Amino acid sequence: MKAAIIFGSKSDSPVMKKAADVFREFGVSYSAHILSAHRVPELLRETIETLEKDGTEVIIAGAGLAAHLPGVIASMTILPVIGVPVSSGGLGGMDALLSIVQMPKPIPVATVGVDNAANAAYLACQMLALKYEPLREKIIAFRDRMKADFAREQGQGVEL
Amino acid sequence: MKAAIIFGSKSDSPVMKKAADVFREFGVSYSAHILSAHRVPELLRETIETLEKDGTEVIIAGAGLAAHLPGVIASMTILPVIGVPVSSGGLGGMDALLSIVQMPKPIPVATVGVDNAANAAYLACQMLALKYEPLREKIIAFRDRMKADFAREQGQGVEL
Amino acid sequence: MKAAIIFGSKSDSPVMKKAADVFREFGVSYSAHILSAHRVPELLRETIETLEKDGTEVIIAGAGLAAHLPGVIASMTILPVIGVPVSSGGLGGMDALLSIVQMPKPIPVATVGVDNAANAAYLACQMLALKYEPLREKIIAFRDRMKADFAREQGQGVEL
Amino acid sequence: MKAAIIFGSKSDSPVMKKAADVFREFGVSYSAHILSAHRVPELLRETIETLEKDGTEVIIAGAGLAAHLPGVIASMTILPVIGVPVSSGGLGGMDALLSIVQMPKPIPVATVGVDNAANAAYLACQMLALKYEPLREKIIAFRDRMKADFAREQGQGVEL
Amino acid sequence: MKAAIIFGSKSDSPVMKKAADVFREFGVSYSAHILSAHRVPELLRETIETLEKDGTEVIIAGAGLAAHLPGVIASMTILPVIGVPVSSGGLGGMDALLSIVQMPKPIPVATVGVDNAANAAYLACQMLALKYEPLREKIIAFRDRMKADFAREQGQGVEL
Amino acid sequence: MKAAIIFGSKSDSPVMKKAADVFREFGVSYSAHILSAHRVPELLRETIETLEKDGTEVIIAGAGLAAHLPGVIASMTILPVIGVPVSSGGLGGMDALLSIVQMPKPIPVATVGVDNAANAAYLACQMLALKYEPLREKIIAFRDRMKADFAREQGQGVEL
Amino acid sequence: MKAAIIFGSKSDSPVMKKAADVFREFGVSYSAHILSAHRVPELLRETIETLEKDGTEVIIAGAGLAAHLPGVIASMTILPVIGVPVSSGGLGGMDALLSIVQMPKPIPVATVGVDNAANAAYLACQMLALKYEPLREKIIAFRDRMKADFAREQGQGVEL
Amino acid sequence: MKAAIIFGSKSDSPVMKKAADVFREFGVSYSAHILSAHRVPELLRETIETLEKDGTEVIIAGAGLAAHLPGVIASMTILPVIGVPVSSGGLGGMDALLSIVQMPKPIPVATVGVDNAANAAYLACQMLALKYEPLREKIIAFRDRMKADFAREQGQGVEL
Repeated sequence: MKAAIIFGSKSDSPVMKKAADVFREFGVSYSAHILSAHRVPELLRETIETLEKDGTEVIIAGAGLAAHLPGVIASMTILPVIGVPVSSGGLGGMDALLSIVQMPKPIPVATVGVDNAANAAYLACQMLALKYEPLREKIIAFRDRMKADFAREQGQGVEL
Repeated sequence: MKAAIIFGSKSDSPVMKKAADVFREFGVSYSAHILSAHRVPELLRETIETLEKDGTEVIIAGAGLAAHLPGVIASMTILPVIGVPVSSGGLGGMDALLSIVQMPKPIPVATVGVDNAANAAYLACQMLALKYEPLREKIIAFRDRMKADFAREQGQGVEL
Repeated sequence: MKAAIIFGSKSDSPVMKKAADVFREFGVSYSAHILSAHRVPELLRETIETLEKDGTEVIIAGAGLAAHLPGVIASMTILPVIGVPVSSGGLGGMDALLSIVQMPKPIPVATVGVDNAANAAYLACQMLALKYEPLREKIIAFRDRMKADFAREQGQGVEL
Repeated sequence: MKAAIIFGSKSDSPVMKKAADVFREFGVSYSAHILSAHRVPELLRETIETLEKDGTEVIIAGAGLAAHLPGVIASMTILPVIGVPVSSGGLGGMDALLSIVQMPKPIPVATVGVDNAANAAYLACQMLALKYEPLREKIIAFRDRMKADFAREQGQGVEL
Repeated sequence: MKAAIIFGSKSDSPVMKKAADVFREFGVSYSAHILSAHRVPELLRETIETLEKDGTEVIIAGAGLAAHLPGVIASMTILPVIGVPVSSGGLGGMDALLSIVQMPKPIPVATVGVDNAANAAYLACQMLALKYEPLREKIIAFRDRMKADFAREQGQGVEL
Repeated sequence: MKAAIIFGSKSDSPVMKKAADVFREFGVSYSAHILSAHRVPELLRETIETLEKDGTEVIIAGAGLAAHLPGVIASMTILPVIGVPVSSGGLGGMDALLSIVQMPKPIPVATVGVDNAANAAYLACQMLALKYEPLREKIIAFRDRMKADFAREQGQGVEL
Repeated sequence: MKAAIIFGSKSDSPVMKKAADVFREFGVSYSAHILSAHRVPELLRETIETLEKDGTEVIIAGAGLAAHLPGVIASMTILPVIGVPVSSGGLGGMDALLSIVQMPKPIPVATVGVDNAANAAYLACQMLALKYEPLREKIIAFRDRMKADFAREQGQGVEL
Repeated sequence: MKAAIIFGSKSDSPVMKKAADVFREFGVSYSAHILSAHRVPELLRETIETLEKDGTEVIIAGAGLAAHLPGVIASMTILPVIGVPVSSGGLGGMDALLSIVQMPKPIPVATVGVDNAANAAYLACQMLALKYEPLREKIIAFRDRMKADFAREQGQGVEL
């Protein structure tokens, strides 16, 4: 039960770390890689092949600007690829979002919200849970706990 | 190996049919449902529960405008939910795209491009292939065939 | 003469507090709740039912990102629901605005401007004033006072 | 139990007619007016005053482009004003939407989706239902019927 | 040779002051007013009438959000009205820009760039120069000086 | 009392003709020119100089895409230049609007709405009316007539 | 003196043909290829290598949606790559534009306007003219002719 | 082997300096100029002519707002012009991007990403490398080194 987190630049680490936190919470082992579709395409290809051989089953890829990394990875593997648009500059991440989500068929990228790497990892876990019953149970328990926590903390109304 | 395709209005059928075509191509059985998060929430909840019991493993949900359907379904199940923003009116599908992809954690929707229901189904198949080896082989064969077809048809250059 | 203010996260409190300030100014009693359409849907439904039984007549709902909360509440009640798009991240609240205002028929949300919870409460008061004559008079007096204050303070021109 | 529908140009009639259809469905009497905030401001003011005297309780205002009509009406009355952004030209109604929804405090306009005049009328009915019990019952019955119809027609799944 | 600068809120002063600076530079007398189309419409109308009687020949109006002020003033007078969209909140002034520039015929507002009140005053001076020869000469001299200064300071190239 | 209408391509004629119609209505003589800031800059400069010598007092310039024509003309003259963003392609005229309205100081372009050449001519007339009393009276009469016509035709309410 | 035109789908042919027309006009030999960054990456890489060996000196690449093709080609060669965003669907080509122009350093794509393949070829010719004097003279002659034609046809003013 | 960097305001220096850094890295001599299409058009034209005579072969032009500078330069020369949209104000550089990239045929500007002057210089070097073999080798070596550095630093995976 292994995942990979790939992103294009050290500056994306604070955003992508939120995916790692979720994987640790759910006991999903993961590897993290800084790679670039355009600067080291061969290394990227080799890494994807290695990840596939090592049993990685889902890949999270984050990138900003003309964010090609998730789509390029998706073209190299049939593992599900989850894309995280990373905001940067004045366009608020709209550039990265459109560069990831608008992938033409038949090469989809499962896109989550701008800078929302946590959601990428939750989604990865839900995919893995199709196959791994204990993870499925963990997610169900997490959701139940989330509801209970939310209800206990917020349920009586708040001061405003 | 079962999927479901859910959408909000008969007018979305031509878009969503492209997902069904892909499922048939890959031999994934699917059911299709017109449902609404806001008009029949109880029926939606019951349907999701029935789908889970019947062994559905991935859900594609398409909607336009303030497209809540994929997110609401994602909150009702831990099955992976794939969202298809359907364009309508003058905003070009930007409303549906943002209403689907910007889901807050921890309830992700795996979003694909505007009106790109085919990609939603390809993504669903890739998720299912984590578990079903024959489907995995079919997808690999499909990709190889796609490459070969593309190379044979386009490889010699075109007239312009 | 009761209203409710519902929002999705403690971080929205500074924005939503401006609605509470207006309700206090006009003597409209209100309750405030942190709730989530996706994380605690049952609790949300129960709360809406309780609010209806307790005589709440109008609901303000604020949310950011893919802001489903106002629309989901609107589907649970026929009380008027006023939506406040809360800005967050780089998209400037455009995501929340479209997720709220573009609700399909027949489930409307009365949407106000991004982060403009004060206007949501003014609107709520105007709705309640259809029924409560003293509130109606208060609003008319408030508008008259606003004009008089504005005229006295600004009327002679300003230095620039 | 009276409403008014005001819009700026004959060309908006096909959009705004959908509001009238809803009012007829719910037995809410209404008057319709073509008026302009900028071309006939005095006539607009007189009309609003007449509407108030005649017992109109909620006003729907539709406009395109720099859509000032709803906001200007809202400044002339404390009746709730519901704004319908009408799309026109290449900007897809985004101009009208922002010109209506971003009204500064304390003059709110209850904004609905682009060209969605039906939702404006449903919202108006929900406001009036705060005061008129029979209308409230009609809306509840309408919602129940909507659910039943939806369930009967769509509930068994569809062919795709 | 008189101009007026009108804006909706004290918080717009730093932006609008740049118009006053230009008027002082060109010796155009001006008055400044904080007024609101929606909060004090009568006072606005009276002010416009007074300005017309006192010989004001051009009006600059600045506003943010759903910026109706310039258009409402333009409907009250046939003096040329120059609109300054003031940025505020997360939409970067796009809301104010569209609310001002998209005025329907036959009530135009001469719109300048977001927060660019200086350009509004330059434009006002160019309009006045149609009638006042000395101002015309001042503007020509200003443009010549601008070119000479620019050429002297920048002409030899810069270090980078 | 002369105006000029300049635009970049024969395909803009249907849009720009609406300015000519208004000039004819108000008895303002005008000349029309197809010119390009980038393809015939010298001819453009000569034309502007000729127009100035011939007594042209205001210039309307329409362009699409990266619409530089109005700004380039504005840099060549101190006559007021009114810019008409012409829509073309998929961006709905947003490209032309931003290319015209966002001119940096001290070279303003008086921008009107997308494709709204009629408003450009109304604005030009209002500028000329600062100097020409008979035109001023014509515009006032036009506005009065507009109000009377509007009131007579629409005042009694419409069927919907 | 050779160029290549590469695009992702037969449906882009009408747009990309305009580049071929310009190349023919200037006597630049070119080859045209339908290729895909994601469907046939190896074939794309081989083609780029072949083009380089055959003496191709500049590459035009057109694509729509999440338009990765130009950027991916740019990562495979140090020949200048010119990107043409192709519009498709409701987003008007904004998706393709941002996916091409926002390429991160140090892999630039020389981006031209949406659907403006003619400009891509003009730009390619200007690059080649750095090296090929006869082409340089052709372009200068073309520009002179363009000016003369424009002046002769449009110079006397037009009817409107 | 000479390039020029031209921009409109001292405030753009920090952005444009990144182009100079790249030129120094590759041994391309360059001159830098602050110039304005609208404030000193004659000086701009003279400078372009001087640059052409002095053997400048490619021009980088950066500008913000309604960024006409790159397009105006492109109309004055057949040297390739590379445009850098500079962000400023609330529109995030979208105004500058559209004002540069949407240039109509036959006057292209090779546009790079918002504030990405480094990429402009890389692109300029790639154009020059068509003609200058040693530069071509330097770029190839740079890309190889970039890959090697990237591989060495990032290749083993990172902690997250």
